[in-house]
Parts: sequence; structure tokens; C-alpha cells
Amino acid sequence: MKITEPTLLLDPEKCQANIERMVSKAKKHNLCFRPHFKTHQSLQIGKWFKNLGVTQITVSSLKMANYFKEDWNDITVAFPANTREMEAINIIGADIHLNLLAESPETIIQLGSKATSTLGVLIKIDVGYHRTGVDPNNISYIDLLIQHIKQFPNLDFKGFLGHAGHSYSATTKAEIHEIHHDSMRIMQKLKKNYHPEFPNIYTSLGDTPTCSMMDDFEGVDEIRPGNFVFYDLSQYGIGSCSIEQIAVAMACPVVAKHVERKELVIYGGGIHFSKDVDTMAKSKLPYYGYIVDLHNGNWEITDKQSYYSKMSQEHGIIQASDECFEKYQVGDIIGVLPIHSCMTADLYGTYQTPSGLIERL
Amino acid sequence: MKITEPTLLLDPEKCQANIERMVSKAKKHNLCFRPHFKTHQSLQIGKWFKNLGVTQITVSSLKMANYFKEDWNDITVAFPANTREMEAINIIGADIHLNLLAESPETIIQLGSKATSTLGVLIKIDVGYHRTGVDPNNISYIDLLIQHIKQFPNLDFKGFLGHAGHSYSATTKAEIHEIHHDSMRIMQKLKKNYHPEFPNIYTSLGDTPTCSMMDDFEGVDEIRPGNFVFYDLSQYGIGSCSIEQIAVAMACPVVAKHVERKELVIYGGGIHFSKDVDTMAKSKLPYYGYIVDLHNGNWEITDKQSYYSKMSQEHGIIQASDECFEKYQVGDIIGVLPIHSCMTADLYGTYQTPSGLIERL
Repeated sequence: MKITEPTLLLDPEKCQANIERMVSKAKKHNLCFRPHFKTHQSLQIGKWFKNLGVTQITVSSLKMANYFKEDWNDITVAFPANTREMEAINIIGADIHLNLLAESPETIIQLGSKATSTLGVLIKIDVGYHRTGVDPNNISYIDLLIQHIKQFPNLDFKGFLGHAGHSYSATTKAEIHEIHHDSMRIMQKLKKNYHPEFPNIYTSLGDTPTCSMMDDFEGVDEIRPGNFVFYDLSQYGIGSCSIEQIAVAMACPVVAKHVERKELVIYGGGIHFSKDVDTMAKSKLPYYGYIVDLHNGNWEITDKQSYYSKMSQEHGIIQASDECFEKYQVGDIIGVLPIHSCMTADLYGTYQTPSGLIERL
Repeated sequence: MKITEPTLLLDPEKCQANIERMVSKAKKHNLCFRPHFKTHQSLQIGKWFKNLGVTQITVSSLKMANYFKEDWNDITVAFPANTREMEAINIIGADIHLNLLAESPETIIQLGSKATSTLGVLIKIDVGYHRTGVDPNNISYIDLLIQHIKQFPNLDFKGFLGHAGHSYSATTKAEIHEIHHDSMRIMQKLKKNYHPEFPNIYTSLGDTPTCSMMDDFEGVDEIRPGNFVFYDLSQYGIGSCSIEQIAVAMACPVVAKHVERKELVIYGGGIHFSKDVDTMAKSKLPYYGYIVDLHNGNWEITDKQSYYSKMSQEHGIIQASDECFEKYQVGDIIGVLPIHSCMTADLYGTYQTPSGLIERL
């Protein structure tokens, strides 16, 4: 493996272990597991899920749905339905079971009046993140949405979907627990309310922090975590994973050293990592990644004393420990664990593994 | 023009006016103009420079140099030379005049011993940004680097290059002025020192803020601004441009509305804009862009009351004025001026103009 420029590495063993753990957890709690594939966006990695019996997936765009329909015939697009893409919706909807999210009569009317095949519709519920979704206490509005869905024979009301995105800014397990239980209570109540009329409706929840850390899913029928497939330093910071479970790393050439500042300059910046930043647990300093030592495409966690401290478009600055500074020379390749693996992976067309390349969308 | 998903719009008139203004400024001050093409990365936009007599360019990667060598035969890669890419260096160096940056003996030895054609070498000087480059007061180290360059007949010492990246965080014109004059003094001194031995050496400076706002370039032979081709809200905030001079905008579908928070949800997040954030002048609130009204691929600046307030991977939240909230409905397309046009443009393969697509790397 000859690395000449910033390269996204994947450890298939760590990744498969992450998948197996989540599949087992879903089975144990009798949950439908509909993993979010926006993190990896790869048919080949998708097959690792398929081999473990997963049959339904989540994506965040119609482009991804179109890519994955080759292997998957039941896909939920977990993003407010973009009716500007009605042509793509109808092409995909003709081939597979496609489920879309609605939270307004306008969207439902557009979907219902233009769909050329049956579309599953989930009502997006705001479980507390306040990004999208309907207020779960606004029952008259939810009734109104359902009335609109029922008007169209080609729209199939599937149930309620929520995303507790506020769990990503939680700092304690107790906080995650509270967020998760609030979401579950909301979903339980909705299901109880509408189950008599729609005996097949289901509730869908489950981001990576809650699915990784919680052990109670009462009232939840389906979970949709995505990031867990790779994890990252942001999830490590929340407590969703150990640092050893992070399955992707960046490999970057060292292009300069500055002894007076103990800084290594690497080729690898915002266009390679994305600009996601986090705060280190002890020092509370902002950082863009931790350094790892690479060995034939795998990596070893170092002491977390050396970190990616400043980022520009192509440059990265590593604030290095004495040991790290001595170890790496101009022309060497250094490893960096990313802050947000979904965003980093989105910038690449392939994953480099010790045994070759894995393709993605 | 039918827009269905987040799309990068370019106004060719604004862009060409930005280019003409900078070409004139360089001529007026008798400067060699070597624009940085990492912002637009397009052969077609490059031709607009060529038509105005520009003959030399700057890029930030060998991939870009390889793309642009079709039209340009004198290219400087303004990034510490990555000797891992020696194969690409030799392929490009065989075809055109390729100039690389060095700041260590290791890099110079690698380049000199492996180059198969003549390479131009510039010594990177730290003019105060403290990201990369040699301390300009460390004359013995600069002497050492030049001695190394002289050892290799295929390395041609071209001069000194600096980048006053700290001008991007300046908040007043006086601060930009001070940064610029410090950089110029450094370059003047170096040139004076080495000119007797190397009568052809030149000094290269010039980021977008200093090149847009300053009118004194004494001791500078070459300028390399890049962002000015499009400008953006970050440059507008610094004072490099008017808001009307920004030549790119994003077009995004509105997918939901939340009347209780006066928020529009748009399809257009971190994977479409990049996650660059800035602070609004009056309120000092963080923001990801201002709203503009689109008309057939052009746009009109609104009152800056409506702004992009929260960003996730695919979602954007627009904090809307009453008027803006009423104007836009689910299914409409809304325009957003980006914070950092270089990073946003890097995520796209084409620019949408009123008269069709412009291709890029």
C-alpha cells in the first residue's frame, strides 16, 4: 500500500465487529434494525449487514436510495421529502418499497398527487431536537396530516419517526438516558393513540449515542443508528464507543516540521477531513483529531498527547508530544482519527483497507 | 433551469468583474499576477484570466497542477512540496515550468535527487501566520537551504514566498494594513540580502484581503490572491468586498417550515456548503450564510435579517424574518450566500450559470 496523499483508511475487522454488536443488540431487544447507510454509503459494506440478516435500510437522500436499490428493496429516506425530486421518487418507488418523511399537508399533497406507485409515509415527530418534525402534543395537526395521507390511495401511512439529535451534544450518560426515555415516552403515546385505527403502524427512533449506550427500548419498533458502523472521536467523546472501536482513520503525509512550536505540518485539511471540530476531554481545547501510528493499513492508538490542533483548506497542524515529534520525519505518513466519520467519509470515493479498495457512492 | 437539489450557482458577470478588477490592480502596481486557482478549479474560468493576459497561476495540489497544465505552462504549487508525490511532480515537471515550495533540507534533497527535469524552488517564509515557513530572521537557516538548492543542478532557486493567512482573522482595515506592511518589510529585506547573488529572484505575497484592500506593494514582485474570484461572506466580513461582488450562491429546496420558531428547513447542509461558520457583524451570532432571492439563476441581496443559523449533514435551518418566512413555501428554492466559497466550491463538479454548466476539476 503506497500512500502519497490524504487517504481514508478502513479497518474491516473493527467495522464488522461494530455491525455485529448492533445487530445483536437489536435482536436482543426484538427491534427491527434499519441501519442508516449515509455514514458508509457503500454497497460492499452493505453486504456485511446483509450477511447478518439485515433487510431494511435508512439513507438521507434519493441519490443514496437510487444507489442502494441494487441490493436493498426496502429503504427509508430519513429527511423531509423533497418534492422537487418527484421524478427520482417515482423511478425508485417503481422498483422498491420506498418510505418518505412528511410533516406538512403541502408535502403530502405533492407526494399523493404525483406518485406513480405506492409510497410509504412516516410522520416526522420532533422528539426534542427541534430541527424538524411535528410537535407530538399537537394531536389535531397530526390528525390533519393523517387525514391528508388517507386521501391518497398510493400513500401508505407507516407510522412515526423521530431523531434525538440532541443526544449528540449530551455530555453524560444520564443526559443520554433522559433524552432517550423522553423520546420513547413520546413514541409510546403516539402509537397507543393511533394503533386502534392503524394496527400495522410502527415507531422508529435511534441515533448512535442512544443505541450504543441504552438498554431499554420500550415502545420502539425500529432503530436507525448509522455512525456506529465506523464511530469517531465525537462518539468517543460522548461515550458511545471506545477509542479502539473507531474503524476509520486518515493517513496523511508529513510535509514540514517546526521544532520551536513542536508542530508537524500535514497534507490533510478541511477538504479531506471536513471542518468538524470537537473539544478534548481533559484540556477542553478544540481539536480536529488524535494521532495514531500506522502499520500496514492498521493503526495503534497513541497516548492522546498529540492532536490535530489547527486546520486550513489543505494544511493540518499537529501539536506533537516530544516523542511524536521525534518519531515523524518529513515524507512520513501519520494517522489521524477523525472527529466526524460521516462527514469525512462523504469526501471520498473509496476506502483503503489492508487488502485493497472498497468502493462507495 | 430546473433545480431539484442543492446547487452551486455562479454569476459570470460578477466573477469576470472581480477578475478584471484584480488584473487592473496588479498592472497598476507593476506586479506579476499569479492568481490562486484553488478557489474555482476550472479550466473554463481560467480562460477568463487568460483573455486578460494572465500567464502564470498558483494551485495547492499536484492534482490541480496536472489538471491545469492543459492550458497553463507556469504553475506554482503553494503548499509545502509533498515528496511522496515525486512521480506526479516528474510527470508535470516534464511538461511545464513547475515551481514548488521548500522549507527544509530534507525536502530539497528529496526533490533534487529525484527530479527528472528542472524544478523551480521557492523558500516558504513565515511572514507572521505561523502555519508553515521559515523564520525570516533565521538567515543562517535560509543560507543553509539555499546551499542545498545550489547543490542540485535541476533545482532552480526562484525566490521567497509568503502567505499572510492571519489577515483572514483581521477585524479592521488598520490591522490588515499592519499585517501587509510587516510582510512587505520581511520580503524587501530578504530580497535585498540575496539579490546580489541571485539577480532574478522574486518575492511572492498576496492573499485576498491584502490584495483587495491595500494600495502599496513595495518590495513585492508577485501576488497570488485566489478567493477574490468569487469572494464570500467571510471576505465581506473582513471588508475585502461588497456583498454585491460575491459571485457564487447556493440554491436549496425548502423542505419544511416551522412557524413557531420562524424557521425554514432547507435541503443543504455540511456536505453541500462545508461547515465553515462566521459571526454576523451586528448581532455577533454565528451563522452559515445570508439569504438571497433567486431570479433565473441570478440573485438579489435581501435585508440580511434572514440567515442560515444551524447546520447538520444535509439539513440547514434558516432563521427567517417575517417577510422571508411568508415568502417561501415548501417546495420553493431559496438562495444562500456561502461563508467560504473555496470550501463550498470544492464540493461540486460544476457551476450552474444562467446560460448553462461550467465544468471544474
